[in-house]
Amino acid sequence: MDKTRLEAFSDGVFAIAITLLALNLQVPSRSGHGLPRALGHQWPAYAAYVVSFMVIGIIWMNHHSMLRSVRLVDRRVLVVNLLLLLTVGLIPFATALLAAYLRAGFDGRVAAAVYSGVMFAMAVSFSLLWLAVLHDGAHLHKDVDPAAARLTLRRFGMGQGAYLATIGLAFLNAPLTLTVHFAIACYYIFEQLPVPSSG
Amino acid sequence: MDKTRLEAFSDGVFAIAITLLALNLQVPSRSGHGLPRALGHQWPAYAAYVVSFMVIGIIWMNHHSMLRSVRLVDRRVLVVNLLLLLTVGLIPFATALLAAYLRAGFDGRVAAAVYSGVMFAMAVSFSLLWLAVLHDGAHLHKDVDPAAARLTLRRFGMGQGAYLATIGLAFLNAPLTLTVHFAIACYYIFEQLPVPSSG
Amino acid sequence: MDKTRLEAFSDGVFAIAITLLALNLQVPSRSGHGLPRALGHQWPAYAAYVVSFMVIGIIWMNHHSMLRSVRLVDRRVLVVNLLLLLTVGLIPFATALLAAYLRAGFDGRVAAAVYSGVMFAMAVSFSLLWLAVLHDGAHLHKDVDPAAARLTLRRFGMGQGAYLATIGLAFLNAPLTLTVHFAIACYYIFEQLPVPSSG
Amino acid sequence: MDKTRLEAFSDGVFAIAITLLALNLQVPSRSGHGLPRALGHQWPAYAAYVVSFMVIGIIWMNHHSMLRSVRLVDRRVLVVNLLLLLTVGLIPFATALLAAYLRAGFDGRVAAAVYSGVMFAMAVSFSLLWLAVLHDGAHLHKDVDPAAARLTLRRFGMGQGAYLATIGLAFLNAPLTLTVHFAIACYYIFEQLPVPSSG
Repeated sequence: MDKTRLEAFSDGVFAIAITLLALNLQVPSRSGHGLPRALGHQWPAYAAYVVSFMVIGIIWMNHHSMLRSVRLVDRRVLVVNLLLLLTVGLIPFATALLAAYLRAGFDGRVAAAVYSGVMFAMAVSFSLLWLAVLHDGAHLHKDVDPAAARLTLRRFGMGQGAYLATIGLAFLNAPLTLTVHFAIACYYIFEQLPVPSSG
Repeated sequence: MDKTRLEAFSDGVFAIAITLLALNLQVPSRSGHGLPRALGHQWPAYAAYVVSFMVIGIIWMNHHSMLRSVRLVDRRVLVVNLLLLLTVGLIPFATALLAAYLRAGFDGRVAAAVYSGVMFAMAVSFSLLWLAVLHDGAHLHKDVDPAAARLTLRRFGMGQGAYLATIGLAFLNAPLTLTVHFAIACYYIFEQLPVPSSG
Repeated sequence: MDKTRLEAFSDGVFAIAITLLALNLQVPSRSGHGLPRALGHQWPAYAAYVVSFMVIGIIWMNHHSMLRSVRLVDRRVLVVNLLLLLTVGLIPFATALLAAYLRAGFDGRVAAAVYSGVMFAMAVSFSLLWLAVLHDGAHLHKDVDPAAARLTLRRFGMGQGAYLATIGLAFLNAPLTLTVHFAIACYYIFEQLPVPSSG
Repeated sequence: MDKTRLEAFSDGVFAIAITLLALNLQVPSRSGHGLPRALGHQWPAYAAYVVSFMVIGIIWMNHHSMLRSVRLVDRRVLVVNLLLLLTVGLIPFATALLAAYLRAGFDGRVAAAVYSGVMFAMAVSFSLLWLAVLHDGAHLHKDVDPAAARLTLRRFGMGQGAYLATIGLAFLNAPLTLTVHFAIACYYIFEQLPVPSSG
């Protein structure tokens, strides 16, 4: 099965999810305290927008890299890809939840745990997608080394571990959890993953 | 007429409808009972999100399979495809309606019937699309067997029967209706439809 | 300039606008009168959804047909295409306005006039796009007859006249105006426009 | 790395952001003053819709032009492109903010400064994208003159200066700031940028 429409559909979902993040930025209603203070009070929404935008952007780049080493996709890959998109579709909700409750004591820690949980589910789905892709070596491009691809998979496993740890961290401190998600995203942006490339 | 833009436009509508499903997940307003309880109270929204995501994902995969056996599309196919997309566009609304009313007694059963009715209309439109595609055998790829394609159409007819039955079931029990939709989606995910493939 | 990204971007805007129409369908808040009555009371929203869905679908099909006869696009075409998309982007708002005010006496007639005005602006933009495309004959495919293309343009002019007339009609009767828009859409769906095709 | 999915993803974000602008157009709630007056009172929303639509449309056209001179993209380009899309995703929010506060005295001037700031950030990101593209001359098409590309970059720098000036202007007069943004957009629409083209 050709991979063109899989890419087009996934790109569509990634693009919509990343743009819907901005719907969480609400125009403040008029109050006696003035707009600058009202906007400043919304800083969790801006911080969460930037972090979640980076995360979805990185997933998209890695999805892009992964599919470059794939020649054909079967129904197994389509189904696991849908699972990944289901978790991506939850990111705008988790982002809005975290932004709304970041400063709310225990509820803020619950919101941070939900946010970390969605990120963890996304990372696990991404690894499952690698497994589905590697399941049949004949679907890879000829010049892709399956051993190198498995190594990449192991490195993704480390990312999952980091996201799992943020679930625990969430119950200690919500703003720190968002900061750690920012740090993880920075790491993945500047670290070129050794994706087995076609050349 | 070339099928590229039909696929691109349909993929766009599928991708947007599937991502808009998550807009039904509302951030709970702060209350005295705490966020965990408020999130737990929203379980119908999460359950409906998962089921509708699977249904739209499956339609997309089957749409993908169908168009792989097509070489050219005429205006008849474009128009029937629009009818299918019109029903797909209603799924986020039907999902939100079911999630909001699932526990509301008689109104919940009405909402479940509306949800089932939208799914039934979608399945009927999908069969009409197959009919429109098969109307002119010259539009199929040469290696597609029209008899096999008609057999596939008959199997889709069974899916329509199942959706029709859920309309009746809805008036008995709304949560059970959602569960049956989940079961139908699972069946279609794991059952490889005998789509007449190009090889 | 290649036309691929023009098509991709336009398809994106058409797909999003057509899917956003469904956001106008609101889940009724719970009341003492029951869900069936609340849903029935929303009939203007459903009627407006169907009519606007057909209109956007038809514009998309005609946009598709037009660009099939084009080989290259210049900046003039890109700019006029943006104007068309600007009017398409207004259709969900005009639809929501008409649905909300359809039964509101004078305000309903105003809303119907706004709806008709947006449709008229869209039809005029579409004709301007034809003019921009025909401006440089070298941009057309070789087998396209410029005379036939101009004839098509004249037929679009008739559509504009019909939409202009609905602005006047709006001030007499709002529901009738929506019905006439439905009739115009049906006409364009079943009437194969003599688009100068590549074969 | 191939540029096809970069274009598809970016087109998706541009198309969604430009269509979401219309979500800022609210159906007025019924009041005693009638719909015409209520719609007229919304003029800042319509004016901001048109200006922001033009701005996003122009970015899209220039993005289109830039990528035509590019043959390959590396991870650096993908990351800077994400930064550009992050600023584009903020435009609907900034537009809604400006429309809501345009007539609100000091708060209106703050909203205009935020709007101008987002446009400035977008222009800077666009220049950074040019720098990332020019960083490795081997990524350009053979027939692109790097010197001409650098000249284009310098002209973009002038656009940044204009946007920077509108931040200062915002603190003097909010409606005038929106008018200047309209004028800048008109200039860029009619001025063919000397993008180094493949011919």
